[in-house]
Amino acid sequence: MTINRIGLIGLGIMGKPMAKNLLLAKHNLGLYARNPATLESFTTNNIEKYSSPAELAENCDITITMVSDSPDVEEVIMGKAGIIDGAKSKHLVIDMSTISPKLTRSIAQSLKAKNIDMLDAPVSGGEQGAIDGTLSIMVGGSVEAFNYAYPVLQVLGKNIVHIGDHGAGQVSKACNQILAAQTVAAVGEAFLLAKSSGVDPNKVREALLGGFANSKVLELHGKRILEANYKPGFKAKLHYKDIGIALKSAEENNIAIPGTIMIEKYLRKLVEQGDGELDSAAIGKIVLDGNG
Amino acid sequence: MTINRIGLIGLGIMGKPMAKNLLLAKHNLGLYARNPATLESFTTNNIEKYSSPAELAENCDITITMVSDSPDVEEVIMGKAGIIDGAKSKHLVIDMSTISPKLTRSIAQSLKAKNIDMLDAPVSGGEQGAIDGTLSIMVGGSVEAFNYAYPVLQVLGKNIVHIGDHGAGQVSKACNQILAAQTVAAVGEAFLLAKSSGVDPNKVREALLGGFANSKVLELHGKRILEANYKPGFKAKLHYKDIGIALKSAEENNIAIPGTIMIEKYLRKLVEQGDGELDSAAIGKIVLDGNG
Repeated sequence: MTINRIGLIGLGIMGKPMAKNLLLAKHNLGLYARNPATLESFTTNNIEKYSSPAELAENCDITITMVSDSPDVEEVIMGKAGIIDGAKSKHLVIDMSTISPKLTRSIAQSLKAKNIDMLDAPVSGGEQGAIDGTLSIMVGGSVEAFNYAYPVLQVLGKNIVHIGDHGAGQVSKACNQILAAQTVAAVGEAFLLAKSSGVDPNKVREALLGGFANSKVLELHGKRILEANYKPGFKAKLHYKDIGIALKSAEENNIAIPGTIMIEKYLRKLVEQGDGELDSAAIGKIVLDGNG
Repeated sequence: MTINRIGLIGLGIMGKPMAKNLLLAKHNLGLYARNPATLESFTTNNIEKYSSPAELAENCDITITMVSDSPDVEEVIMGKAGIIDGAKSKHLVIDMSTISPKLTRSIAQSLKAKNIDMLDAPVSGGEQGAIDGTLSIMVGGSVEAFNYAYPVLQVLGKNIVHIGDHGAGQVSKACNQILAAQTVAAVGEAFLLAKSSGVDPNKVREALLGGFANSKVLELHGKRILEANYKPGFKAKLHYKDIGIALKSAEENNIAIPGTIMIEKYLRKLVEQGDGELDSAAIGKIVLDGNG
């Protein structure tokens, strides 16, 4: 199937640079935004603007959704004048938002009844990854849909893995979020132990980067924590939301993940004390402040 | 000061390859072992064997100790016919074992009274790092001693960082151990969440390696966990010992490190159920088995 036009809904921190990369790759774009002012900066003539997700989907072959949370995804796909109302048979929805695996499976099933296909394709790599087109993309859905979408995903990311069936991408993202957050907390504990022992945590970080405890989190968030630079980046309140998804899944699957429960407390504390807009590296701040 | 001979006490998994690398670098070695049979394989003529740590220290300029635990270090340095009894003024003891920062400071002080200098220089990188001479070495002690020892440490490791004063190397190592162990546990939780959701954890690992949750632990221990390959490597019982050192320091410093308390439970469980000889990646096994 030829891809004549790609629809994109969600022009936030992530969606905007993704749109730019799709345009650079010579794709025709279809855009919709709840607030039309968001679309003003998009002026090239390979862009069409639509007044509803349904209208957008009707005029595009693929619709990418990149919105904040489960209710937003549900609304643009299943809600009034939603994608499901406009999309023609064989349309593909690629949801790159981070939402619940369970909801993903349920939406995919509803779409399938109308012969619309879906991939869940949440990402890791943050704003910089979106700008550079180097996102890590975790994909759930059929192999056929994955192969069809692959050239488009390649424009947006670098490490693109087909994890499994519907929801598997979201499960992988949940795994990513619990691992990243716990590593931040562990880095916080290491720095706290160093500081309280009268040892420079900068030196400790330098030493640990060369050994077995090395991680992307120690490198990037470790630096943020030591500089007390919590400008986002990836906001704590969104990480909190993602951890909630993981804990809900754990509950549904009847498993215990106590490390995740611990970092949920840290993130909740950040949100409750009004620090939800900080980068989620601020988990380290909570640990360093002894609120562990 | 010229280095005519380097003494080495402790010819275990780590010490043996370190001895080989020192010999390859054309150093004369002095060896002592509680069990003389350990020394039988060392037959080249640039090796001298001694019958006590004191005799060894008397005939060497530097003594490296690489033994299992705090009591072993205390014995070879401070015990009967210990290093302190034989070492001449300006002798340098480099303790590369992993022991308590507090004990390190106390030993360093006793040695100083006899004009013997000391560095604590624990390592990360395991047996393979020792074999390849690519250990990460975290050093505590004076800048002068560090500079004197540097060419020798360069034979053994790659990322050699002077962290601070006596004990700072041990503090850094404790930080390394709590970060590494917590990351293993977090990887275990991620795999458990994937498996319980019917998603292949191998695929999840593959995806996460390309993103923000990437770490050496995910790469190496993640693979071990998925292959259920717990052949050591670095034994769980030694990691358990190291976490005990970290928790003792935390207690002395009056700080809370709850993530470390959690993984101490996992390691204790491993040791108590007779799995202390397994690689410490078996923390992931405990988590996967739902014993979290």
